[in-house]
Amino acid sequence: MIGRFQPFHKGHLQLSKQILRECNELIIAIGSAQFNYIYKDPFTAGERVLMIHAALLESGLDLAKCYIIPIANDENNARWLGQLKSMVPHFDVLYSGNEFVKVLAQQQPIRVKKPFFSKKDDYNGTNIRRHMAAAASVISSTKPRRKSQNWKRLVPNAVSRLIEEIDGVNRIKILLKSDSNPQRW
Amino acid sequence: MIGRFQPFHKGHLQLSKQILRECNELIIAIGSAQFNYIYKDPFTAGERVLMIHAALLESGLDLAKCYIIPIANDENNARWLGQLKSMVPHFDVLYSGNEFVKVLAQQQPIRVKKPFFSKKDDYNGTNIRRHMAAAASVISSTKPRRKSQNWKRLVPNAVSRLIEEIDGVNRIKILLKSDSNPQRW
Amino acid sequence: MIGRFQPFHKGHLQLSKQILRECNELIIAIGSAQFNYIYKDPFTAGERVLMIHAALLESGLDLAKCYIIPIANDENNARWLGQLKSMVPHFDVLYSGNEFVKVLAQQQPIRVKKPFFSKKDDYNGTNIRRHMAAAASVISSTKPRRKSQNWKRLVPNAVSRLIEEIDGVNRIKILLKSDSNPQRW
Amino acid sequence: MIGRFQPFHKGHLQLSKQILRECNELIIAIGSAQFNYIYKDPFTAGERVLMIHAALLESGLDLAKCYIIPIANDENNARWLGQLKSMVPHFDVLYSGNEFVKVLAQQQPIRVKKPFFSKKDDYNGTNIRRHMAAAASVISSTKPRRKSQNWKRLVPNAVSRLIEEIDGVNRIKILLKSDSNPQRW
Amino acid sequence: MIGRFQPFHKGHLQLSKQILRECNELIIAIGSAQFNYIYKDPFTAGERVLMIHAALLESGLDLAKCYIIPIANDENNARWLGQLKSMVPHFDVLYSGNEFVKVLAQQQPIRVKKPFFSKKDDYNGTNIRRHMAAAASVISSTKPRRKSQNWKRLVPNAVSRLIEEIDGVNRIKILLKSDSNPQRW
Amino acid sequence: MIGRFQPFHKGHLQLSKQILRECNELIIAIGSAQFNYIYKDPFTAGERVLMIHAALLESGLDLAKCYIIPIANDENNARWLGQLKSMVPHFDVLYSGNEFVKVLAQQQPIRVKKPFFSKKDDYNGTNIRRHMAAAASVISSTKPRRKSQNWKRLVPNAVSRLIEEIDGVNRIKILLKSDSNPQRW
Repeated sequence: MIGRFQPFHKGHLQLSKQILRECNELIIAIGSAQFNYIYKDPFTAGERVLMIHAALLESGLDLAKCYIIPIANDENNARWLGQLKSMVPHFDVLYSGNEFVKVLAQQQPIRVKKPFFSKKDDYNGTNIRRHMAAAASVISSTKPRRKSQNWKRLVPNAVSRLIEEIDGVNRIKILLKSDSNPQRW
Repeated sequence: MIGRFQPFHKGHLQLSKQILRECNELIIAIGSAQFNYIYKDPFTAGERVLMIHAALLESGLDLAKCYIIPIANDENNARWLGQLKSMVPHFDVLYSGNEFVKVLAQQQPIRVKKPFFSKKDDYNGTNIRRHMAAAASVISSTKPRRKSQNWKRLVPNAVSRLIEEIDGVNRIKILLKSDSNPQRW
Repeated sequence: MIGRFQPFHKGHLQLSKQILRECNELIIAIGSAQFNYIYKDPFTAGERVLMIHAALLESGLDLAKCYIIPIANDENNARWLGQLKSMVPHFDVLYSGNEFVKVLAQQQPIRVKKPFFSKKDDYNGTNIRRHMAAAASVISSTKPRRKSQNWKRLVPNAVSRLIEEIDGVNRIKILLKSDSNPQRW
Repeated sequence: MIGRFQPFHKGHLQLSKQILRECNELIIAIGSAQFNYIYKDPFTAGERVLMIHAALLESGLDLAKCYIIPIANDENNARWLGQLKSMVPHFDVLYSGNEFVKVLAQQQPIRVKKPFFSKKDDYNGTNIRRHMAAAASVISSTKPRRKSQNWKRLVPNAVSRLIEEIDGVNRIKILLKSDSNPQRW
Repeated sequence: MIGRFQPFHKGHLQLSKQILRECNELIIAIGSAQFNYIYKDPFTAGERVLMIHAALLESGLDLAKCYIIPIANDENNARWLGQLKSMVPHFDVLYSGNEFVKVLAQQQPIRVKKPFFSKKDDYNGTNIRRHMAAAASVISSTKPRRKSQNWKRLVPNAVSRLIEEIDGVNRIKILLKSDSNPQRW
Repeated sequence: MIGRFQPFHKGHLQLSKQILRECNELIIAIGSAQFNYIYKDPFTAGERVLMIHAALLESGLDLAKCYIIPIANDENNARWLGQLKSMVPHFDVLYSGNEFVKVLAQQQPIRVKKPFFSKKDDYNGTNIRRHMAAAASVISSTKPRRKSQNWKRLVPNAVSRLIEEIDGVNRIKILLKSDSNPQRW
């Protein structure tokens, strides 16, 4: 499976489980690996590896059957599948609901399988980052804590714990502000 | 002449003819060569080479006087003309209506000549891709076929034939949808 | 201090003076060095070096205490500080009001100091480029000259003189027009 | 630990065990990830991930404590540690016998620890590739089989099995020949 | 067919003819397109396009069946075929005597055909550049002219004419000297 | 003037003085700016800026007339002059004894002037790095100190002082050893 995993959420975890039911091994390719500290891509590839590893472990999946691999983007889309194949172990099936991936893969001996995502509007990186940006700061806020921590129920516990350890909510707030700042430098 | 040629249309063909009337040889530099499978840049450089070659041939131009060459972009604009000159045969005149190209070329011994484009609003990549994205699928549509194939009269026959061979209209529809999809990966 | 300096304005000059009052030496790192001839980044790194050098000299600062160094961007933000440190002389303090820079620097032995910028809405690259784009051409305009030259009072004299020498106002107008032109190539 | 792992050999495996005795978790960073099908770098990053994963598993190490991550090179050495840190989970200790790595790390809060490598002349990528290139082809050779398979005793069984599956010995022979061929293209 | 064509020689021309006898169309992919003014790669991609075009024309081949396309290198060999396919029109057969190319292509629906090269030791870029570097300058030399112009009989007439127009022999001599000069900058 | 300045030596300083006698201003372009911690390129661009600045200051040159600017390499030589021009202030004369630079510049309105270098075999980066690598460590050596510090008399005092501050001799020794080590990673 492929994703940016900014962050890894419960929809991703469900898909991981589905794949391990249907295949012998699971490769999780972390796209846009070179991006970080951007509102759309707040976490480094290394932080994302850590979150995914911890979430799989927490949910009892067998890490001996999993590969978690960061992949830098390739601006030449037609070459991207070659880039992907050179960076991960051999695979036969690619899980993606994206028609675009299907089109790129169609000239290769790769089967593209559409995953089933439940609660797509909730379990969705854009939505989760928005919740995080809106999260009331623990200290200054007077809003009820429940609401301000909405994002936590959308990601595995292991992920929310790691995001707190690296003060990720605060990072996202700062990035939201400075990305739209014309004087970033 | 320089362009992205997404796709090569009748305005481009007219300019090709004009240049071959006014000069000994014609160099067609295909810009943004590394981009493809993006809504704004749907076709690979190789597909564009093929379309242009076929369109020139179809309209009776002498291929022995033509060079069709893909050029990757250069993020440093001030260096771009050096990039261009290293990738194509020596040239004296650059046909471009773009003031920007004129400014870049002004310190070089290159003459910039403004091309005459007729029907600029029709013969225009953005417009043509919009028509393609809107084209009714042959099977599912109930709209009259004439309207849904509007884009075909804007490009040389050879080009529309090649686009159909590679199922280009469908590709553009998928790209339009997935480019605007925040979860592309 | 870090900036894109498109162009170097009076707010930047004030900060330069402040730094030289508080530190032994001043390093001015010119970001986005590889970009130029874009509306948002109209001047080359070389032109910006020249403007800054001339402005510091004009205002009586001691060039023997100043380093003016272009730095190409790094798409990997987490690596950017390493890029910066490899390109400029050793520094202890980084002047930046940007929270984002502060976050990136926090794991390094670097002190981030918030500069005091007066008249931030005026002394501001975006604002100045907008004024320049709106500047009436000396020849064709019938508007009063004062208004059309508004941008000049926002930058040091040395800078406005250099921009006129390279016909910078005209360049910005052309870039504004061609950047939004879907047929740039 | 850092290496190119072309291929992953018994010395690497010993170090992996040492690190897991001395630390809670092990990160194996695969350098030069973008290189492959070169005599010096015959295997893709994905193939190397697979070999390492299989070798750790075979020797009974707990994969839940291991991270295996390909890292592209950075031509700016002074920035390399920033690149590494952005691509892998947080680490406190870097195992490297290389003085060069020690010098790069000395301004960072990272402890560099010298690994103990036994049989360094045998357990050594250059040596192993040389043995592979010299390996008699199973079919054509009349040399005793033992000698021709010398390289196998230098790598974990899982690694030699995978190399045979992808016909790696033959690949190395071809690369040795074509790398030194001035007409490679 | 693929090559660096530094320069395009009679062996290349023979292969071009062979391919046009055996196939409908001929694609000539010029590798290492971004390199030039190096002893090993003296000519720009544009100059090489010009030489090849002229040589095909001179020998009576039909340019309407030929595509001459510069391709930048890809440091990731496993991805290179994807790069090639995105830059040239669709092809079914790849002519290459290089085992390495055969290995890269083996997982793709591409047929690799071994070309027949006669006089491989003469018709060979390295050999020809050596002859050019050794060529006595027309003016200063006292050696017999025949010997000093040895390289000319190894390339098509059109190519030797173009090399003389751009003073290519002198360029190669300078590059040979400055490449081995430790103070090149 | 252009150079890698690894390190900036007395020959470079002499040329700086010559240029300031013959021209109004001096631009020192530091090539291969992105390389560092390699035996051939031991110092970062920032360290080289510092050395040059200090050496000019020490020898009484007017820094208000000098620009010291790091430039990353461009693998496309034919485009390199465009890269250079975009990164430094406008210049009319390029001081270089290198025939290669002369060839690249010959189609531009730039005058190439051959500098006079005295003691070229001594004042020479390769020679100086060799001396540094051979320098006896102050502590462990039993060789006479004079000989072991040979490199110091070849560079300006300011440069040798800075190299000692960053322990540069030791760095060069480590790089010499690890560059030639096939197991660098």
